[in-house]
Amino acid sequence: MKIDVNSDMGEGFGVWRVCDDDAMMRIVSSANIACGFHAGDPAIMTRMVRLAKVHGVGIGAHPGLPDKLGFGRKEMAFSADELCQQVVYQIGALCALAKNEDMRVSHVSFHAALGNMINRDDILALQVMQAIHRLDPELIIFSQPDTIIERAAREAGLRSLTLFLADRAYDAQGHLVPRGTAGALISEEKQVRERVRQFLEQGTVKTIEGEWISVRARSILVHSDTPGSVELAAIVRSEIEACSGTVAPAADVVALS
Amino acid sequence: MKIDVNSDMGEGFGVWRVCDDDAMMRIVSSANIACGFHAGDPAIMTRMVRLAKVHGVGIGAHPGLPDKLGFGRKEMAFSADELCQQVVYQIGALCALAKNEDMRVSHVSFHAALGNMINRDDILALQVMQAIHRLDPELIIFSQPDTIIERAAREAGLRSLTLFLADRAYDAQGHLVPRGTAGALISEEKQVRERVRQFLEQGTVKTIEGEWISVRARSILVHSDTPGSVELAAIVRSEIEACSGTVAPAADVVALS
Amino acid sequence: MKIDVNSDMGEGFGVWRVCDDDAMMRIVSSANIACGFHAGDPAIMTRMVRLAKVHGVGIGAHPGLPDKLGFGRKEMAFSADELCQQVVYQIGALCALAKNEDMRVSHVSFHAALGNMINRDDILALQVMQAIHRLDPELIIFSQPDTIIERAAREAGLRSLTLFLADRAYDAQGHLVPRGTAGALISEEKQVRERVRQFLEQGTVKTIEGEWISVRARSILVHSDTPGSVELAAIVRSEIEACSGTVAPAADVVALS
Amino acid sequence: MKIDVNSDMGEGFGVWRVCDDDAMMRIVSSANIACGFHAGDPAIMTRMVRLAKVHGVGIGAHPGLPDKLGFGRKEMAFSADELCQQVVYQIGALCALAKNEDMRVSHVSFHAALGNMINRDDILALQVMQAIHRLDPELIIFSQPDTIIERAAREAGLRSLTLFLADRAYDAQGHLVPRGTAGALISEEKQVRERVRQFLEQGTVKTIEGEWISVRARSILVHSDTPGSVELAAIVRSEIEACSGTVAPAADVVALS
Repeated sequence: MKIDVNSDMGEGFGVWRVCDDDAMMRIVSSANIACGFHAGDPAIMTRMVRLAKVHGVGIGAHPGLPDKLGFGRKEMAFSADELCQQVVYQIGALCALAKNEDMRVSHVSFHAALGNMINRDDILALQVMQAIHRLDPELIIFSQPDTIIERAAREAGLRSLTLFLADRAYDAQGHLVPRGTAGALISEEKQVRERVRQFLEQGTVKTIEGEWISVRARSILVHSDTPGSVELAAIVRSEIEACSGTVAPAADVVALS
Repeated sequence: MKIDVNSDMGEGFGVWRVCDDDAMMRIVSSANIACGFHAGDPAIMTRMVRLAKVHGVGIGAHPGLPDKLGFGRKEMAFSADELCQQVVYQIGALCALAKNEDMRVSHVSFHAALGNMINRDDILALQVMQAIHRLDPELIIFSQPDTIIERAAREAGLRSLTLFLADRAYDAQGHLVPRGTAGALISEEKQVRERVRQFLEQGTVKTIEGEWISVRARSILVHSDTPGSVELAAIVRSEIEACSGTVAPAADVVALS
Repeated sequence: MKIDVNSDMGEGFGVWRVCDDDAMMRIVSSANIACGFHAGDPAIMTRMVRLAKVHGVGIGAHPGLPDKLGFGRKEMAFSADELCQQVVYQIGALCALAKNEDMRVSHVSFHAALGNMINRDDILALQVMQAIHRLDPELIIFSQPDTIIERAAREAGLRSLTLFLADRAYDAQGHLVPRGTAGALISEEKQVRERVRQFLEQGTVKTIEGEWISVRARSILVHSDTPGSVELAAIVRSEIEACSGTVAPAADVVALS
Repeated sequence: MKIDVNSDMGEGFGVWRVCDDDAMMRIVSSANIACGFHAGDPAIMTRMVRLAKVHGVGIGAHPGLPDKLGFGRKEMAFSADELCQQVVYQIGALCALAKNEDMRVSHVSFHAALGNMINRDDILALQVMQAIHRLDPELIIFSQPDTIIERAAREAGLRSLTLFLADRAYDAQGHLVPRGTAGALISEEKQVRERVRQFLEQGTVKTIEGEWISVRARSILVHSDTPGSVELAAIVRSEIEACSGTVAPAADVVALS
């Protein structure tokens, strides 16, 4: 069984860094590369592309809102047209840097507030996906399962890859428990291993209320910007391999679907 | 005889503007669009692409240094790799926005300090041109004649289009007289018309010292960001037409060369 | 009768400008100077201070949200503490530049989204006013009459100066009619003159519904960033003088209250 | 004997950080706080002021060039007036935030390229120091001994505090050996301790060529942004105390001079 492991990468610019990209690039199979708006500049984006090339990692665009101060986490009142153009701009910039390194962008994963805004608005989501389709119909859209983003991608003729988060609690509806809530974050190694195994073998996860729900996902998203995130990512990968799973980039996993 | 008229366009972002793009787009045949670093954002870049489409104007990337405060006019100590990546990033972003509007970027014209830095350094220039060639070998490079940029473009296998400035004085070596010097700027209508006619009919220009030199150029660069620039640009165009010249985008002019 | 005429000034940075500050500084008696967040940089702020000194104009801080792309017009989710610190930072910066020119900041006028956020939240408003009081208890707060900002200023021990807008329609509650609404903007010279005269002589304004309401204000805010704004501001000033009013800076007007 | 230990602090903004300010604030006696140009925002500046208050640390302004991407390390062609205004703006902003916390800025330490530019130009240096004197004649200027900055401060009527770097090699002229050179950085604990002791007891340092030169300094600058910098700073402080020195803020040390 092939499964993708992805993480947000290159979330720095100039001297600024929020994560250990070198360590993380040895663990993941897909890297979602910040594209210069909430983080990222041409130099670190290129470095990520080169690292991904060395380690056989698939590269994706990780577009965000134009706000380095707020790291793209604050929603901003842009029109649908403006948001769409911001997405296109960022993907185009990464595609060019990738081409310059003889690599190709395989997927798109939306960052923080931009992702939330798109995932709340059917019309915006479809407009964004149609623009992405015009750029490159082969691009794979990363999303939570059963979301506006997933549906819009399908409607626009794009493939999507759905995500499971091994270190975040789910509720009965299959939604992530908000970060503020007690128990929302799972950082204990044994628990993370169990959740990965359960997901791989049964396709289920135990909710915060204690019930089992099924999780339709083909990629595990691991965080890169929290203390211990590299270690946790390594645990996820080692548990996949212990379950006889094969960690593979998004394009390989989607091709099998 | 076909001749291109080009200008720097879309040099604004958010509410900020330095030129009247709507008026200028009715005059030029090639628009050099700012790409988000010294000026430009996805919204105004898209607006430029759409305007260019309406008016049959060819679109080019106008990359600059990452410095909106200084409008890309101050040199900054970036490495050759970094400068190269900044150029690639900006061209890629515009190409994607153009593709989203079913348009295609035809050329590249470097802005201010970035252009000066590239035009002073053979190795950097070649590196930049090779990167542009990897992105799209059809891209045409705008440059002054007999410059490092023109030679590097040729060496990298790219076509170039050389420029004549009807409103700037030349010296005996064919170089532009620096802006600070008396007589460097030519704003009188009659004089501009004479220079355009002389350039079109004889391929020559009278230097600031009063001698005639030949000017090898196929495009006239008109300014967009100075008082009276729209009127001056209109004069240039009308004089070309009065000389039975045809104003045509860069791609048409280069195809004839 | 003394009345202040104020406008937002120095709303540029680097090469970027949105208004004709030189012309406007000859008309107003109080200048609200952008402080570097939504617009403004140390150079243009200093230029404004020097111009104000030459023309005997009172200078005020015009703090905004940290967003040059959006010109401070988009609300952003900052905490009350953060907003308060942003206001203090900006006022402090202008006070220092003024001191460097042997001038003194007399007032504070909040820009766009920052003003709206403060004016909607009693607790935030009081926190901001108390911080301003700690900086300099002599600072005068500009506000619409009967607003959260006016009340918070009073509660914090600060003086305020209330504003009348001669070129904007009011509703029966004394609120400004939103810009989008038909009739919200008044640009016809005769009408503006009548409104200024009516305000000065009777202290009243005719609402958009056609009724008369009283307007408690000691300063007229004129716009600087719309076409024709300089001319309209000059009309306002000339009508005040035609009514035998004296145009005087905020500090003079408030001293008389 | 009283000696100051100072470090650059608060060199982050938004989510971005380059150093562990909390740990460092327990070690130093003077904190040079980034003011929003190369790093710093109102929130982190306030946090630094509050931390300094808790730990009895003196606070200083650490102004830099307006360039977060380049961290203020690239020189930029601003005029002397512009640089001066940038310094005033930044100091004013910090002074206001400090006042808001009932604290007072005691000193100024210039960052990277801005410091280099000022320290190379007598006229600029004097202009900057005179501006600082107009703001607050009590401000203490941090500098290397026998530099243009130190002389200009004295000429403008400002006090200065000279610095010793325990972890950087000196040459026979008393200049720092450039970072690139072999042996320029000293990170070995025993060596750092010996240099601190030698400096405190004899006022001398052994140059990279092996000779002894005298070092006139009353403050030790410790780095905050390199791996192991917190540990090295703690070593410096513990060695001062082992030598029966007293670590004290700049204002205390200067008062004794």
